[in-house]
Amino acid sequence: MSLDESRVQSLLNCGILPSKSQLQHRLDILQKWDLIPGSKVLEIGCGQGDCTLVLADLVGEHGHITAIDPAPLDYGAPVTLGEAQSKLKSTPYGYRITFHQSNLQDFLDSGVSEPLYDYAIFMHSIWYLPSVETLQSMLLSLRGRAKHLLIAEYVLDIRGDIAALPHMIAAISQAEFNSRYEHSSGREDNIQSIISPKMMRTAALQAGWELQREEITEAVEDLEDGRWEVGRVLSKRYLDRLEAESGASKRRQEFANALIEAVEVNRRAPRPQVKVKTLPTWQGSWM
Amino acid sequence: MSLDESRVQSLLNCGILPSKSQLQHRLDILQKWDLIPGSKVLEIGCGQGDCTLVLADLVGEHGHITAIDPAPLDYGAPVTLGEAQSKLKSTPYGYRITFHQSNLQDFLDSGVSEPLYDYAIFMHSIWYLPSVETLQSMLLSLRGRAKHLLIAEYVLDIRGDIAALPHMIAAISQAEFNSRYEHSSGREDNIQSIISPKMMRTAALQAGWELQREEITEAVEDLEDGRWEVGRVLSKRYLDRLEAESGASKRRQEFANALIEAVEVNRRAPRPQVKVKTLPTWQGSWM
Repeated sequence: MSLDESRVQSLLNCGILPSKSQLQHRLDILQKWDLIPGSKVLEIGCGQGDCTLVLADLVGEHGHITAIDPAPLDYGAPVTLGEAQSKLKSTPYGYRITFHQSNLQDFLDSGVSEPLYDYAIFMHSIWYLPSVETLQSMLLSLRGRAKHLLIAEYVLDIRGDIAALPHMIAAISQAEFNSRYEHSSGREDNIQSIISPKMMRTAALQAGWELQREEITEAVEDLEDGRWEVGRVLSKRYLDRLEAESGASKRRQEFANALIEAVEVNRRAPRPQVKVKTLPTWQGSWM
Repeated sequence: MSLDESRVQSLLNCGILPSKSQLQHRLDILQKWDLIPGSKVLEIGCGQGDCTLVLADLVGEHGHITAIDPAPLDYGAPVTLGEAQSKLKSTPYGYRITFHQSNLQDFLDSGVSEPLYDYAIFMHSIWYLPSVETLQSMLLSLRGRAKHLLIAEYVLDIRGDIAALPHMIAAISQAEFNSRYEHSSGREDNIQSIISPKMMRTAALQAGWELQREEITEAVEDLEDGRWEVGRVLSKRYLDRLEAESGASKRRQEFANALIEAVEVNRRAPRPQVKVKTLPTWQGSWM
């Protein structure tokens, strides 16, 4: 058992919910950033806390993770955010973690925020944002409030691995659907936008951050996200929601339908059928 | 030299303009339909006449091709539609071809149309249409005016061949851009919609046509269309047109930009760089 495997296994032994591949994926990304033990970390968009747990392990007993998410605590199924976060708090890592239900600006303006964090981290929370504009204002708010900025998000680059193509088209489909609304449409979909590395680089630069390093991390073989997003787009509920859209033009509706079909046909290739793979993750670090 | 090669070579020897791969591609598709020599064919959306020439060869000296296209005769570069069509008329096949600048309904309603054609053919002219609705009304008009309906169009299914992925995303990008307008946006882009085989089957069925056969034809190795469409989407002119769009929301503009970037990054994969391939063609025949 490698160091990684034993680390992931001991986290799983806490009785928490994320799968082994979810933890391994976050560990693969976080390890490239060489977080300094004892650090104070602000995690933005923590969701159910999969990354929070791995962070709590990596910063050691003298570190602390402040994890924020604006979603209601009763959001999520089969386990809600509140339930998952409570569970994490009850593990041996719990004392290193504080959860807040808040958006970034309100949190930074509140009395509970530290004046300065060692790291501000976005782990797969960028595509939840409605637009680059929103991201840029967040990065501006973080300037002076964190020493380092760390961002990890999927990238629409299958890098020659055709098994990730259905995930890519499913992301395009969700982003198209949600781009119809002025704001984020209540988080029903995981993917609100398909903000690219180039857009993230530009937004960070304009907010005063200096890029230190960027790299690509391939998804571990059985990371579920690709299959989840494909399943979502091919579900009856997704099609029903699309058809209930009265505001869009006929042409736009046909375009959306063609994207759903493209997910479906490309899931069947290459033949014989292979498992859908999750897209690679792009990660960048700034100071 | 195979029969096909000698056929293509003799067409090229007419001094006309389409490349060898354009002719070969159309021959590959048309040969699967076993057109009866001596047939009267109505070709809808003939453009510069690449398919018209191959059809004129296939129907033999007693056959005839009526080729219509609504585009102005001065459309197209470096050679206009009018110039290309005149050139074709001057070849030994010219007497078998009649060109008309017209849309389908006006043509069928005019005195020059035959009451009944053996075949009505759409060769890569479906994605020029603004919507399935337009296609369906055309197919309805053709009912009773042609014995057979033949359609060939690209399909958003790369069938495991990653080299066709940039063409696929470029098609999605153009269709997204053009779906913003109520009607076809003056044909500046080759791709106005990404009407799928499923949509074509449904439209034909609802117009009273009975599907006889459907199949996929892979593009010949050096067919240029994939590279052309990728080049278009990555051109400065395309980006300028997109940025000049004042009607679209910020989110939609970002979505469109992300698609352009996805074309660019996926063109670089698989590494080492390979030539962009053209998407496969789906072809169906109805009675």
